[in-house]
Amino acid sequence: MERFNDLADFSAAEIQELIALANRLDHTPEPQALEGKVLSLLFLNPSLRTLASFQSAMVRLGGGSFVISPDMSIHGLETRPGIVMDGEAAEHIREAVPVIASYGDAIGIRAFAQRRDIDTDVADREFDELAGLAGCPVINMESAIQHPCQSLADWKTLDDLNIPSNKGKFVLSWAYHPKALPLAVPSSTLKMAAMRGMDVTVLRPEGFELPDAVMQKAQSLAEQSGGSVTESNDRREAMNGAHIIYAKSWSSTRHYGDAVADKALREELVDWCVDEPWFEPARDDCRFMHCLPVRRGVVVTDRILDGPRSVVIQEARNRLYAQMAVLYRMLKG
Amino acid sequence: MERFNDLADFSAAEIQELIALANRLDHTPEPQALEGKVLSLLFLNPSLRTLASFQSAMVRLGGGSFVISPDMSIHGLETRPGIVMDGEAAEHIREAVPVIASYGDAIGIRAFAQRRDIDTDVADREFDELAGLAGCPVINMESAIQHPCQSLADWKTLDDLNIPSNKGKFVLSWAYHPKALPLAVPSSTLKMAAMRGMDVTVLRPEGFELPDAVMQKAQSLAEQSGGSVTESNDRREAMNGAHIIYAKSWSSTRHYGDAVADKALREELVDWCVDEPWFEPARDDCRFMHCLPVRRGVVVTDRILDGPRSVVIQEARNRLYAQMAVLYRMLKG
Amino acid sequence: MERFNDLADFSAAEIQELIALANRLDHTPEPQALEGKVLSLLFLNPSLRTLASFQSAMVRLGGGSFVISPDMSIHGLETRPGIVMDGEAAEHIREAVPVIASYGDAIGIRAFAQRRDIDTDVADREFDELAGLAGCPVINMESAIQHPCQSLADWKTLDDLNIPSNKGKFVLSWAYHPKALPLAVPSSTLKMAAMRGMDVTVLRPEGFELPDAVMQKAQSLAEQSGGSVTESNDRREAMNGAHIIYAKSWSSTRHYGDAVADKALREELVDWCVDEPWFEPARDDCRFMHCLPVRRGVVVTDRILDGPRSVVIQEARNRLYAQMAVLYRMLKG
Repeated sequence: MERFNDLADFSAAEIQELIALANRLDHTPEPQALEGKVLSLLFLNPSLRTLASFQSAMVRLGGGSFVISPDMSIHGLETRPGIVMDGEAAEHIREAVPVIASYGDAIGIRAFAQRRDIDTDVADREFDELAGLAGCPVINMESAIQHPCQSLADWKTLDDLNIPSNKGKFVLSWAYHPKALPLAVPSSTLKMAAMRGMDVTVLRPEGFELPDAVMQKAQSLAEQSGGSVTESNDRREAMNGAHIIYAKSWSSTRHYGDAVADKALREELVDWCVDEPWFEPARDDCRFMHCLPVRRGVVVTDRILDGPRSVVIQEARNRLYAQMAVLYRMLKG
Repeated sequence: MERFNDLADFSAAEIQELIALANRLDHTPEPQALEGKVLSLLFLNPSLRTLASFQSAMVRLGGGSFVISPDMSIHGLETRPGIVMDGEAAEHIREAVPVIASYGDAIGIRAFAQRRDIDTDVADREFDELAGLAGCPVINMESAIQHPCQSLADWKTLDDLNIPSNKGKFVLSWAYHPKALPLAVPSSTLKMAAMRGMDVTVLRPEGFELPDAVMQKAQSLAEQSGGSVTESNDRREAMNGAHIIYAKSWSSTRHYGDAVADKALREELVDWCVDEPWFEPARDDCRFMHCLPVRRGVVVTDRILDGPRSVVIQEARNRLYAQMAVLYRMLKG
Repeated sequence: MERFNDLADFSAAEIQELIALANRLDHTPEPQALEGKVLSLLFLNPSLRTLASFQSAMVRLGGGSFVISPDMSIHGLETRPGIVMDGEAAEHIREAVPVIASYGDAIGIRAFAQRRDIDTDVADREFDELAGLAGCPVINMESAIQHPCQSLADWKTLDDLNIPSNKGKFVLSWAYHPKALPLAVPSSTLKMAAMRGMDVTVLRPEGFELPDAVMQKAQSLAEQSGGSVTESNDRREAMNGAHIIYAKSWSSTRHYGDAVADKALREELVDWCVDEPWFEPARDDCRFMHCLPVRRGVVVTDRILDGPRSVVIQEARNRLYAQMAVLYRMLKG
C-alpha cells in the first residue's frame, strides 16, 4: 500500500480485510512485526487522538515514530512556490517534507483546510502537493477533505456494534459549534457509510449542504454497494428508524471562507445540539457517534454522551487498531 | 497492581520488594520484558525528570510511551462537570482521559494542586476524578498531595546510602522559595520516612505546618513501623544527630490559597536557605536530599549542592529504576 | 567512543570506518543492536532534522530516545555559576544536565553560540561546560563552533557522489541571509573538507573571514591529508574547476556580536545568492550542497535547488545513517 488517503480508493472487500486485520492485531499482538521500522509524523495542525494513537500503534508493532508538529519552534514552514524567503519562515516544505519522509519508512501528514476557496479544498490540492513531495508511503492524518483513519475506525465500530450494512440507517447530522470547522470528517463519514451499503441521510440546515463533488461521489459509492444517500433539513424525518446518528459540525458551504456570514448563519442554529428528543422517531437502540473532540452542551448534551447511546470512546479506541492495520499492510506487506 | 498512588497503600514489605526489583533491573537489564507495551503519559502540568525518566523506563523494558502535555496545542482541557463548552476549551477530560488511557496499557497522570481549597487538595479530589476516568492501571506522576514515584526513589536512595531505618533520624525541612509550592512532595516524603521506620522531624516555620490529615497518617504509619513523627520550628534541636535533611519549600497552610498573605509571611523567611551551619548539630555524614528542581542560593547554597553531603543527582537517577519496577509489576505482573 | 564532538578528534581512517559502518547499516538493518538502550536528547535551541534523525536512528537500532527541548515549559535553565536563583529560572544546568544524562546511555546536546564574544564561541566554552556535566558519552548536536554530525553526513555524501578526495575542489561559500547565523557549520565543513584531502577555497566577502583559529586548524588538517586551504572574495576565481559549492550564511566576524554593524554590512551583499551564473567557471557536473534549512530565493535560487546540481536532500538523509554509525560505535562498541 503506497497511500492511505481515501477509503474510496479501496474496494469494500479490501476495507473488510483491513478491519479483519485490525481485529486480529487487537486480539493477537505482534510486537515484532515492524521491528526497526519508523513512522514519520508531520502535523501542520494540532492533534491529540491522532498523535497518541499513531505513536502507540508503532510501539505495539515493535517499531517507533517521531513527531514534527506546529508546537515546535519550526518558525513556520513556507508553502508558497517561487517565494523569496526573506520573512519569518526559515524552511520551505519542498525541503522539509522530503527530508522528514526520508527518515521514516512511511509518513503521516496532517494539513487542515485553508478554508479560503472551496474548490481548492474539495480537490485537496494542498495535501496532494505535500504527499507528492514524500519519497515514501503516505498516510492522510486529516486533510482539507479526507480523514480516512477516522472513517476506517468508524466502519470497524459499526461492525463491532453489529449495525446492519444493508438496510442499516445512518444519519450524518450537522450540529452547532461556535467555530467554522472543516469538511473533512463529514465528507469522509458520508462516503464510508455509503460504501458500507447503508441508507445514509445527511441532515443539515440550509446553507450547510455538503459540496456537490462529495455528494456525487457518495451517490456513486452507494449505487455500487446497494446503499442510498439522501439529504434533509427535517430532523424528524431524517431520524425515522435510524440505527446511528453521527454528529459533526462543519462550515457553511454557502458562505465558505466568509467568516462573518458563516457566523451570522450558524448563530441562528444553536438548537442543533443533539439531545434525547432527537431520538424519539429513531430505533430504541439508536447509537450516538462523534469523532471527538466534542463540545459538551454545545454539539451534544451530557446525558447523551454519558448515557448508553454514546459509543464515542469505542470509536476513538478503534483508531488505534484501524491504524495498526494500515501500518502493518503498508510496512510489512 | 492497578494503581500506584500512595506508598501507604502498600505494606513496607511490598515496598521493599519493589526496591529489590528496581535494583535487579538496574543491574540486569530486561529489554524485552514489556515488548509491545505502551505507557500513556498525561501531563496537565510541566515536567522534566518525570517526563524523561518514564520515557526512558519504557524503552529500557522494551516498550514505549507517548506524551500528551500542556505544551501542546490542546487548547485547554475542560474539567468542570455540566459546563456548556462554548468558550476556548475544545475537549473535556471526560472524553480525553478515557481515550488517552485506551491507547496504553497503563497511564501516568500529573495534575498539580489547584491551591484554592486545602481540603479539596488534601483529599486529592481532582486526581481521583481523573484516575477514575481511565480504564487501565494508573500511576500518580504527582497530584495535589501525592508524589509516590519520588518517594519510592527516595526510599531506595536511603537504602543505597545504608541510612538506618530504625533509629535513623530524618529531618524534613521547609526552605525558602519565592513561590508558593504544592504540598505533594513534603506530604509524600513524610509518610515515606515514617513508613521506613525512621525518627522524622518536620522542621518548619509557624504558619507552614503540614495538614492535620497528613500528620495523622504519618503518625499512624510510624506507629506501625516503630518510627516516630515530631514537629519543630527549632532548627538546632531538629538537626541534632540527623542522618538526613530533606529540604523542600511549600505553601503556607495557614494562608492556603491566599497568595498575598502567603507572600508576606514567606518573605520574612529568606534565611531558611540550607547551608553548612545547619549541619553543626547533625551527624558528620549527614546528607542533603531534595527532589529537584532546586533554586541555588535560595533553597540551598552552592557549597552544599556541590559538596559531599548532596545526593540529589543519585535521588533523581533512582526515579528511573523505581519507576521501572512499578511499570514491570503493573504491566508484567 | 566517549565523545563525538569534532571530526578532527579522529583520524581520517577512523572517519572512513564510521562511514563504512553507516553504509552497512543503511543496507543491512540491525534492529536489535541497541535493544533497551536510551539516547537522551537535550536541545537548548530548536531543531528539525537533528531531532527527527536521532529519534529515527535509535528506533532503527532497536532502542529509543527522549527529548528535552526549549519548546517545553522548562522555564529556562539557568547557566550562570554562583547565581542566586530568585528570578524566573527554576533549575540550573548543574542539576539538569547530569540528571537528564543519567536517564540515558548517551546524551546528545545542542547549544548554539551566544554570539557575544568570538573567543568564547570559538573555544566552545558553553558546550564544553555542558558536556562536562554529563556522566555518560556525549554527542555534539551543534554547538557554537562544531556540527560534527552534519560534517560526517557531508563526508559520506561526497563519497556517495564519487567526488575525488585528492584534487577534488571544494568551495565553501558565504551566502546572503537576513539574519546573523552561527559559525558552527562553516567551521566544521571547512575542517571536514580539509581532512578529506580536498582543495578547499573559502569564498566570502570582506568582513566575513572565518576565525583565525579555525583557519589554522584547517590548514594543519590539509597538510596532513595532502589537501589545501585558501581564501578568496573573487567568485570567478574560487569557482574555477570546482566539484562542489557548499553554501552557508554566517555572522560577520569583523562585527561579531554587533547586530547593527553586521546588518549594515550584510545588507550590501544580497547578490550573494547562489545561481546558475556562479557555476560558469566550475566543472559541468559541479554540485550544490547546503546543510538546510535554506531560504529559497535568498541563499540560493529555486532553479539550483530544484535542478540536478542540488544534493541537499541526499545530504540530509545521510544525517540518519551517519548518526546511526556514531550511536552504534558509542553504545555497542
